[in-house]
This record gives sequence, C-alpha cells and structure tokens, in this order.
Amino acid sequence: MELSVSDVGERRLIEYIWETLEKDPNELLGAGLDDAVAKELAEGFVLVAHTDMWVEHTGLLPGMSWRLVGRKAVVANISDLAAKGAKPLGLLFSVGLPPEFPLESLRELVEGLSEGASEYGTHVLGGDLGESREVILAGSIFGVAHRERLMPRSGAQPGDLVAVTGLLGLTAVGFKILLEEYEAPGSVKAKAVESVYRPVARLKEGLALAGCGAVTASMDISDGLAVSLNQMAEASGVSITLEKLPIAEEARFFAERHRLDLEELTLYEGGEEYELLVAVRPGMWSEAVKAVKNVGGSLYKIGVVCEGSGVYKADGSKVEAKGWEHLRRTVG
Amino acid sequence: MELSVSDVGERRLIEYIWETLEKDPNELLGAGLDDAVAKELAEGFVLVAHTDMWVEHTGLLPGMSWRLVGRKAVVANISDLAAKGAKPLGLLFSVGLPPEFPLESLRELVEGLSEGASEYGTHVLGGDLGESREVILAGSIFGVAHRERLMPRSGAQPGDLVAVTGLLGLTAVGFKILLEEYEAPGSVKAKAVESVYRPVARLKEGLALAGCGAVTASMDISDGLAVSLNQMAEASGVSITLEKLPIAEEARFFAERHRLDLEELTLYEGGEEYELLVAVRPGMWSEAVKAVKNVGGSLYKIGVVCEGSGVYKADGSKVEAKGWEHLRRTVG
Repeated sequence: MELSVSDVGERRLIEYIWETLEKDPNELLGAGLDDAVAKELAEGFVLVAHTDMWVEHTGLLPGMSWRLVGRKAVVANISDLAAKGAKPLGLLFSVGLPPEFPLESLRELVEGLSEGASEYGTHVLGGDLGESREVILAGSIFGVAHRERLMPRSGAQPGDLVAVTGLLGLTAVGFKILLEEYEAPGSVKAKAVESVYRPVARLKEGLALAGCGAVTASMDISDGLAVSLNQMAEASGVSITLEKLPIAEEARFFAERHRLDLEELTLYEGGEEYELLVAVRPGMWSEAVKAVKNVGGSLYKIGVVCEGSGVYKADGSKVEAKGWEHLRRTVG
Repeated sequence: MELSVSDVGERRLIEYIWETLEKDPNELLGAGLDDAVAKELAEGFVLVAHTDMWVEHTGLLPGMSWRLVGRKAVVANISDLAAKGAKPLGLLFSVGLPPEFPLESLRELVEGLSEGASEYGTHVLGGDLGESREVILAGSIFGVAHRERLMPRSGAQPGDLVAVTGLLGLTAVGFKILLEEYEAPGSVKAKAVESVYRPVARLKEGLALAGCGAVTASMDISDGLAVSLNQMAEASGVSITLEKLPIAEEARFFAERHRLDLEELTLYEGGEEYELLVAVRPGMWSEAVKAVKNVGGSLYKIGVVCEGSGVYKADGSKVEAKGWEHLRRTVG
C-alpha cells in the first residue's frame, strides 16, 4: 500500500522532509526545527526569517471576516519573529485566490494585512498573486537581531524557570464555541471569540526579553501549549515540570459551566494562541519580569526546567505532545 | 453585480491591492511593483526579498515529475533575486498538500527543492507545512546586495541598449507541445520540453551585470517577453524599440513547420522563461558583454531605449502588454 502524507501527520512529516533536505551548516537556529531561521549578515548581526501559511478550508473560522483573516495572517508571522527576539523589517505575501473571489473581499483582506503590519510597526512590502482552488495566504517575514540576543528553542537549562507572556485558555474556549457550538454567556463568548478572531503577537515582550539577556529558550505556543512545551523540552534536552497555569477568568468560568477539565482544555485544546513560552535563568527572573513590565506586558511563571526528558504536571503525570495537527488522519 | 477577481486579472489586481496597502517609504525598489523588495540593512548594504507561488492546477505541466516541480519552484525565486543583482542567503517554502498526496511524491518534491537550491549555491532553510486542496509551493527568498549595485526595473534611459541573457522562444514551443499537442521532431521536442521542465535562472549573469555597473534597469521575463518589455518601459518612463530577437534554432524550425509567426510566438506565447532583460548604458556595452562572458554567459542586444512610452517592433508596430495572465477570464 502506498503511504500518503495523512498517514504520517505534520510533525513527523517535517522530520521526514529534513531527512531529505540538505541543511545549511551556517544556519543559526537548527535549520527548520525552530520557529524561524537565522543567518549571520555581518559580525554579530543576524537576519531572522519565517514563513507561515493560512489555508481557507482549515483556517477560516465561522463568522470571521476577510479583514480579520488578513490581520491574523500577519500576526502569525510576527509572532515567530517575536519569539526569536528579532525586529521585523517587512513581510511578503503570496496570495492564491479562486477566480470567483469577490473583489470587495480582496479589498478587506488587503486592509487586514495592512492593519496587522501597521500594528507592529512594519509593512507588507510585496508579494505574488495567483489562482488557486481556495484562498491561500502564504506569508513570509524577515527581520534582524543581535546574534548573542537570538532566543532559540533549544537553550533551556535545568533550573531555569518556565514562563508565558499572558493568560491562557481563551482560544480553546473560542474553538469550542465556534466549532463545537458550545454555549457561553455574552461576555465570556465575546472574550473567547475575540482571542481567535483578533489575536495579539507579543512582539514588544519578545524584544524586551531578548534585550534583557535573561532568556535561554523561547518559542510561541501557536501549535498548542502541550505540543510547544514538549518541543522546547525535546529541543533543549531537558524536562519541564509544570506548576500552576495562569488561566483567563472566562476560561475558568466556561470549564466549570460545561464540566470540562480546565487544565486539559488549556494544554490540549488551544492553539493559535500567540503567547511566548520562555525559559528564564533563575538568577535573572526579576530582570525578565521588569523588562516585560516596562513594555506594558506580563510574565507568568508556569514551571521549572529539570534534567531528563518530557513534560510533567505537578502531580507527576505526563503531558503528551498532542493537540490539533495538520495532515493527521484521526484514527478512530 | 458583484465583481470578482477574475473580472479584473492579475496585473490590474496588483495595482488595486497597492491602492489599499500602506507603502513602506523606506522600501528601495518601488514597494511591490518591482520583481523583489529591498530594505537597507546598514550603510550601502541592502536586503533583497521576493516570494513566488506555484499552484498545482495552473502550474503542473503534463509529464512533469514532482522533483522537477520542486526544482523549478526554486529557480523561479532565484531568478527574481538574480534580476536585482542580489546574492541569495536562503529560501523558505510554505508547502500545502492534500491529505492523499503520496509520501513518495513528497520525497521527490523535497529532493527537487534541495537540488534547485544546491545548483545556485544556497539552501532551503525552513518552511511551513499545511493541508490544502491542491499542492501549493509558496517560496520566499532573501539575499543581499550593495545598494548602489541594485538593479531596479525603473532605471532605463533613452539611448540605453536593451538586451537579454539567452536565446528566446523555447518555452513558447514547449507550451505548444505540452498543452496544445503540437508535434515536433524528437530533438526539437526534447529541447523545448527541457526549457519548461528544467529552466535555468541567470544568477551568475545577474551578479556579473550588477557588478560591472553598466546596467540601468533589469528584470526577468518570466511573465512573458511582451509583458516584461512593457513593464520595464512603463516603470522607466521610456519607450523601447526592438530590433532583431535572438531566437533558438529549434523554435525557428518549429515555427516554420507549423506556419506560426516566430516573432509573435516569442513575444506573446512564452513565459516561465528565466532570461534577464536589461537596459545597458551605451558607453558600457562592451563591459557588460565581457562581464557576462566571464561567467560563461551570453548577452544579446534586442533593441534600444527611446523617449516616449510603449514598446515597438522595428517596423513601428506596437508590442502589446499581452501574454498569459493569472486570474484573467477570457472574454470571447
């Protein structure tokens, strides 16, 4: 039987691709296994680049306008640069459109791209346009960083504190409401839906954290918290033990009302959540907190880095690297 | 009646998009209206970036393997950097795959990406992977150039000589054979099909031309010769008068055999032809020829830049900006 890509799933496919693709020995972030790639431009000065694709049939949430889609496609790209501590220079978008796509919707989409870029002090510099069977937004972003300030996924050390830049759980609730028709009171619904319609990338926080020198590892949690924790632990060759997760009040209320396990919801059912997950040198925790506060952000400790491998809850149970995954056939 | 994007067509849509998108005042190449974008990194040192998308249902030619598709997607991106005189630092690919896409085909595709990058001394550094209804390859490339050596589309001056880096006409013949079932003898067919299956980007030539300082304007002709000539003339605010086009022997033979107008075929029915189109200062023509010869290439004069607007054949007839265009409904 011939294997297809859905027999394998996105994360294993990426490993498969890297078994075939020739690696650049001068790439600074582990050639495709980090959130972004980096190349030295001049002594101590690096270019950081990333690409992130949005596809209509998996990415378009009920009720989401084209303007919001455009803005969110920018945010997804900004977030990965933020996680590396790189300042964006600009974005490019390859846009695929079906012939029948309304011109008015294209205008909204482009307004969203412009709005997103403007929010982060950058621009969409150019792109490509072609015909496709569904709307495709393939963004790429590039920016610059100081080499010694670049934050990889792979630098977490035993003893480091693990932290996130915001309250968790809202996107998981948003997906439950939008995709599984869960009910919620107006204010809870508004907050949860807003978190998936208008996410915020932590660019200021990422730059501040890179600048303070306290961070040993960093990535965003857009692939889901449980997956991201496992990826950081694996890339760094360490284990992570969680303590208490900082969860948004609305998510807590929603989980109680629907008798859902709040921690499970937050770990496994989120995604497209653009908080940064960082490991911080224990002796520099207060510097990290101060740096983030200075730019109007927050830093919440969620656990500690230990020797070993894997991710564990406070009670010792294992946090599996599971969550929503592209190209992964559900085995029933 | 609501207008759709196919009522407008790719080239007009790009103008429409730029009416909405906020332009970066610090972009050096005309913000999206050139082949690539450029930003200054340090005094005199610029980053050049470009994105180029390949979509299965419009891009997959009969008989083309996934390995050739991957390689060609790289070539398309390299070519635009070559046209600006920028040295590639690396590529990123956002890849969309249908769930049923064979794993073996993915391996071939990735081998093609690797092969293409390796041919031009660069690497695919990373990417993104997602599920889509057809295969999508959205490449982006970035590289570096000296600011004063950057070759825009828009610098052609009256008196400049217009030239291309290779013999023309083969891709037009290749499309006739592959898409319209025209017949041709084995050797003609082989050469024409090779030109669309395994195109070559003129990176060495582009870098040599940028280095010699003789070029005032440059672009590739991947959108078709007639379209590209008109774009250069318009961007530069000049007219171009053609003399004799350098046409491959096989294209000449094919046109005679099928009683096709050879010049029309070359001007209007090509595309995905990765020769560079350049305007050269008349007093530096021999330097330009020498620079290209030194890297093993050729430079063929095809016309001259004049005052005015538009593109004309030697007999004074107008060369229209027509050719194959994405998202353009055929009006019958």
